Amino acid sequence: MDYFSGYISKLIEQLSRLPGIGTKSAQRLAFHIVNMPKEQVGALANTLTDAKNNVRYCKQCFTLTDQELCPICSNPKRDPKTIMVVETTRDLAAYEKTGKYEGVYHVLHGAISPMLGIGPDDIKLRELMQRLQGDVEEVIIATNSSLEGETTAMYISKLIKPTGIKVSRIASGVPVGGDLEYIDEVTLLRALEGRVEL
Amino acid sequence: MDYFSGYISKLIEQLSRLPGIGTKSAQRLAFHIVNMPKEQVGALANTLTDAKNNVRYCKQCFTLTDQELCPICSNPKRDPKTIMVVETTRDLAAYEKTGKYEGVYHVLHGAISPMLGIGPDDIKLRELMQRLQGDVEEVIIATNSSLEGETTAMYISKLIKPTGIKVSRIASGVPVGGDLEYIDEVTLLRALEGRVEL
Repeated sequence: MDYFSGYISKLIEQLSRLPGIGTKSAQRLAFHIVNMPKEQVGALANTLTDAKNNVRYCKQCFTLTDQELCPICSNPKRDPKTIMVVETTRDLAAYEKTGKYEGVYHVLHGAISPMLGIGPDDIKLRELMQRLQGDVEEVIIATNSSLEGETTAMYISKLIKPTGIKVSRIASGVPVGGDLEYIDEVTLLRALEGRVEL
Repeated sequence: MDYFSGYISKLIEQLSRLPGIGTKSAQRLAFHIVNMPKEQVGALANTLTDAKNNVRYCKQCFTLTDQELCPICSNPKRDPKTIMVVETTRDLAAYEKTGKYEGVYHVLHGAISPMLGIGPDDIKLRELMQRLQGDVEEVIIATNSSLEGETTAMYISKLIKPTGIKVSRIASGVPVGGDLEYIDEVTLLRALEGRVEL
């Protein structure tokens, strides 16, 4: 594409590597960006690097945060004896939006998937088991209702049961095959209320 | 969204201002970005600012380039007597991909739209008329076949006709209401070959 500037071609190339952005969208974005005011482009670039440089895992629940302990884990009003296990920080965000869940979280950063070669050691499962040595009353498994999510839920419940800690799974109000982050808050709440012990 | 890091919220907010990126996509992108290797994020940020800082308009055809004169205008093999008028650099790119057009371009950066309050002075039309004082034999109008594109084509042809320079319009092989950049190369070529004098 030497009829563009090499700078634009490089920008298109890099943008099209991002998830969900094809070549056409990348082109559209690139031309939009070179037409943006200089300060806005600078601000966007700084925001990118700032986010990358300052965001890390919460040392307790492994959500993404800019502190050692995330705002949820360090909030004394949250009940640390109830842990909701989710696959991603986006899923945590989906439940936080309901505003009704008062426990804490554990972010696995993935789900067990024999198809993709992702085993129990590839997600933050050992870290979850370590947390259970503290004072925990219930673990609510809120992995997606996909094959991988269900597999992970079963695996975790089998691990936890011998410890005597209550294990529950969010109710199947969540449509089968659905992705937590796209589900409305009412359905998410119904699924939480209707959770069944495993 | 204080359950995320402020850095992530800011990134999501800025990404969602880009065209075609909604809140959900912005969230997805933001989490992808904080999980990318640090060097890749730095490279992306640099590419953004490099593109913005180095890309400007070609002083002759007004396409986006990083030189004073774009590679097309400065190519001695291109015929400077034939000027194709397009709305955007993306439309120029669409015709360049056919590899068969040997003239040069003029990028208007928009189209006349009374609805949006965009008049002849808001696009690079005066600059086109100035170019016609040189040695030009034909102006091919390749604005989109939308209402705005057709209006612009009519307006330009009326301006140019008195000068005696040939004015043509790409044939209606381009579907009515279509956007040049999404059309396949064969259709684009057929439209070029079937152009009619205005």
